[in-house]
Amino acid sequence: MIVALSGGIGGAKLALGLACALPAGDLTIVANTGDDFTHLGLAISPDIDTLLYTLAGLDHPDQGWGRRDETWSAMDTLAALGGPDWFRLGDRDLALHLLRTQALAEGRTLSRVTADLARRLGIATTILPAADAPVRTVLDTDQGRLPFQEYFVHRRCSPVLRALHFEGAAAARPAPGVTEAIAAARAVVICPSNPFISLGPILAVPGIRAALAATAAPVLAVSPIIGGQAVKGPTAKMMAELGLPVSARAVAEHYGALIDIFVADPADAPDLAGIAARIVPAPILMRDRADKLALARRVLETVG
Amino acid sequence: MIVALSGGIGGAKLALGLACALPAGDLTIVANTGDDFTHLGLAISPDIDTLLYTLAGLDHPDQGWGRRDETWSAMDTLAALGGPDWFRLGDRDLALHLLRTQALAEGRTLSRVTADLARRLGIATTILPAADAPVRTVLDTDQGRLPFQEYFVHRRCSPVLRALHFEGAAAARPAPGVTEAIAAARAVVICPSNPFISLGPILAVPGIRAALAATAAPVLAVSPIIGGQAVKGPTAKMMAELGLPVSARAVAEHYGALIDIFVADPADAPDLAGIAARIVPAPILMRDRADKLALARRVLETVG
Repeated sequence: MIVALSGGIGGAKLALGLACALPAGDLTIVANTGDDFTHLGLAISPDIDTLLYTLAGLDHPDQGWGRRDETWSAMDTLAALGGPDWFRLGDRDLALHLLRTQALAEGRTLSRVTADLARRLGIATTILPAADAPVRTVLDTDQGRLPFQEYFVHRRCSPVLRALHFEGAAAARPAPGVTEAIAAARAVVICPSNPFISLGPILAVPGIRAALAATAAPVLAVSPIIGGQAVKGPTAKMMAELGLPVSARAVAEHYGALIDIFVADPADAPDLAGIAARIVPAPILMRDRADKLALARRVLETVG
Repeated sequence: MIVALSGGIGGAKLALGLACALPAGDLTIVANTGDDFTHLGLAISPDIDTLLYTLAGLDHPDQGWGRRDETWSAMDTLAALGGPDWFRLGDRDLALHLLRTQALAEGRTLSRVTADLARRLGIATTILPAADAPVRTVLDTDQGRLPFQEYFVHRRCSPVLRALHFEGAAAARPAPGVTEAIAAARAVVICPSNPFISLGPILAVPGIRAALAATAAPVLAVSPIIGGQAVKGPTAKMMAELGLPVSARAVAEHYGALIDIFVADPADAPDLAGIAARIVPAPILMRDRADKLALARRVLETVG
């Protein structure tokens, strides 16, 4: 059994590779819920949805979120009626949000709802939210304190970041199965998601960090930084604004003693000399399905 | 100023005719809210929506509910995910329900939300819900007590009706503007909607019935029955199950002293002899826009 910790698109690429490389059912993904929010009365879990769509083969091939074969009638109509259209919700995507919102309103937990959706989408991989209780990323910026989606989508990450908070995390407990999966895993893989906004909320749940510290199995992280640049998203900008070098080394040092193995691009290996974790140079850029599978196999070979 | 009391499609046809026949802003429609319900977490007001779409020229030309140029991606996806698809919600229609649900959740009243939606849709006619507080039609049937949409849509009116209740009506107050509009109107028109499920919930709000009784202006009803048959919907079946003759006369007697004028098909006029209201024979079947306008003009001429 392998456990992967993942955010959205970056992590989902490796998660898909791992799901394909492993026997069905041998992968458990612990998903970031720090991006979750309520919008238009709908309970939206962007990273869980990206994982669901990716593992079901329904993900949009290019845009990094949402579904392929999507239509936009509801959003077009909402805009025409003067409603908020800065967070794009496709018609097919809406169906999933409606079902989840309804199930949560009926008292089901996010982990139960996520398991139901995964089953209905025919996904063999277990997808667990880091926590059932709300954990919400909030950012201190030069434009004030902003909820995550206000910063990330509405303002397109343009505010200058000063600090991050994960509201609710300290009091949250890992969702059922999370610490059990980590304790039983032969390895834990930290996917190449943003270390701050994607992994931060997961690691801020006290029981999860403790389970990672306690396991005898190797904890392996894949760098989201290649040659001083983020593959996608605002990771580089955020690191710079937090006063960190934009480098694979800074990511490895951010994870510190939590990880045993750090997989980085061969070009970044020289700069990593002396970090606590074992360095594994490997091609980590995932452009297509073959890249995802190859990196997943390399990760699995590394952890033995 | 004319006030029209209306349910969904049957009433909306005449309401559209009146809106076209009158100067802009001279019509106030009081809409049935007994069909309203919460479905998939969404606050849905079917008769208000039919009126909004009809008066905005967005109504579906044939099906009697919903929008023209509709798409069904969300509903198809919901069905594929095993969600409830017995109440058909189009993608464009969903946008309106999302906006209303959100606005109600923020504490706005149904009348305020309805006014906002009408304004955004460019509608000059005032559309008022009968009441802001929930009034819910519940039916006693041979299959037990059923909420309205469960009876009407899910079970397609197949249960045998024994009695109707309008939960919340006795304690509800007319929405702001309703009794004022009735008191100021030069005539009140009861549209050819179902007298029981469409007009029943409106008339069950105590202040509305009192305002109709108090006004010196004529109250005119248009028959929803032509030659012993309902133009559309379950009116005939319901009347038979309630032990009433399926006739224009039974409708007129149902309204009783509430109405001053009863407009019925010329073929039904002989059977109406002796009712309390003044009988006005007129072609009342509205197949197209010209029919709607002609009937509206006839109604307006009649009330003077």
